[in-house]
Amino acid sequence: MTIELHCFGESGNAYKAALAMELAGLDWRPVFVDFFNGETRTEAWRDEVNGMGEVPVMVDGDLRLTQSGVIQDYVAERSGRFRGAPGEWREVLRWMFWDNHKLSSQAGMTRFLMNFLPEEKRPAEVIDFMQGRLRSTYQVLDTHLEGRDVIVGRDVTLADLSCCGYLFYEEPFGFDRAEWPAIDRWLGNIQSLDGWKHPYDLMPRSREGT
Amino acid sequence: MTIELHCFGESGNAYKAALAMELAGLDWRPVFVDFFNGETRTEAWRDEVNGMGEVPVMVDGDLRLTQSGVIQDYVAERSGRFRGAPGEWREVLRWMFWDNHKLSSQAGMTRFLMNFLPEEKRPAEVIDFMQGRLRSTYQVLDTHLEGRDVIVGRDVTLADLSCCGYLFYEEPFGFDRAEWPAIDRWLGNIQSLDGWKHPYDLMPRSREGT
Repeated sequence: MTIELHCFGESGNAYKAALAMELAGLDWRPVFVDFFNGETRTEAWRDEVNGMGEVPVMVDGDLRLTQSGVIQDYVAERSGRFRGAPGEWREVLRWMFWDNHKLSSQAGMTRFLMNFLPEEKRPAEVIDFMQGRLRSTYQVLDTHLEGRDVIVGRDVTLADLSCCGYLFYEEPFGFDRAEWPAIDRWLGNIQSLDGWKHPYDLMPRSREGT
Repeated sequence: MTIELHCFGESGNAYKAALAMELAGLDWRPVFVDFFNGETRTEAWRDEVNGMGEVPVMVDGDLRLTQSGVIQDYVAERSGRFRGAPGEWREVLRWMFWDNHKLSSQAGMTRFLMNFLPEEKRPAEVIDFMQGRLRSTYQVLDTHLEGRDVIVGRDVTLADLSCCGYLFYEEPFGFDRAEWPAIDRWLGNIQSLDGWKHPYDLMPRSREGT
């Protein structure tokens, strides 16, 4: 049965799930969620799809999972991939939590404020503050990746597929690959994986590209 | 061997790890980290303790773990507790990720800005914005807890011990238990557990109480 992923192209959190499924070679298809017009805020969507009001939501037969980290964990279990070598799982999980706590959460919000709110509603002080916090976050990742090809061990794991969630998007949110040489090299490694695709080539986007 | 937890009382993320160990009856002790005076920002601390620059850090013999979710997972594995009934683990993990992504991350930052920065440095627009986002977050949790005693299943799991991380603190950060009846009742359930302690009774705090 084809797995369905409720998602939209602009969501880096949805991308994490989509990319893991695509690289694992699972049979899946996107189901477009009209986030920008409020679909996830409706009572019906919360009751029937996800009470947390968030994408991604994965439906595989009777199984419904939400939170990108949980979906990625399921993909790893089904495919036998991306959990690292024996003994590496806790380190993989550590970076997944860090990503949720410090990287994707803050990058996603900042990118939303800077690109998907009407210009007159963009809160300048918040954006400035978040960009400062994000610089410390990028620094941690860049320092960790010095001399490494991937975040944990020798092969791509969910740590990589989680932390890269927002970093391939071109819309400005204060992240410039050229400033972070180790992150830039690591993103290049992910892009060179067989089957890698940009978020907008994996999932339908809400807005036309410019 | 006594487990060491590098922590400080004001950190709700450290509290999640400390509370799990305490309720599981593990032999542990806190090691105070002088966060407010910059200890986690020093090169020595990042090199020797945690490159992410964050507490908590758990040391159990040769094993060093960071990220509260990973430490909680280890405590659950060692103690055989808090993972829920068979088949509930993914739902537990889902709420742990949600907490890292939406609740503790945002509540922790907002509480820091409102209480532990000098008054003249508190960014009013950021605090106001974050409080608005947090209200949506509390609403999701409160709605979920209507008619439930715990977040997943029938017994306390890591989902509860993660989501409650910042919610027992008295310092103002825009969260008032009286406004959220289901959350209030659920927090009472956790407080009534055998061995429950307030964060400041489990870990040394950096600042004197007022």
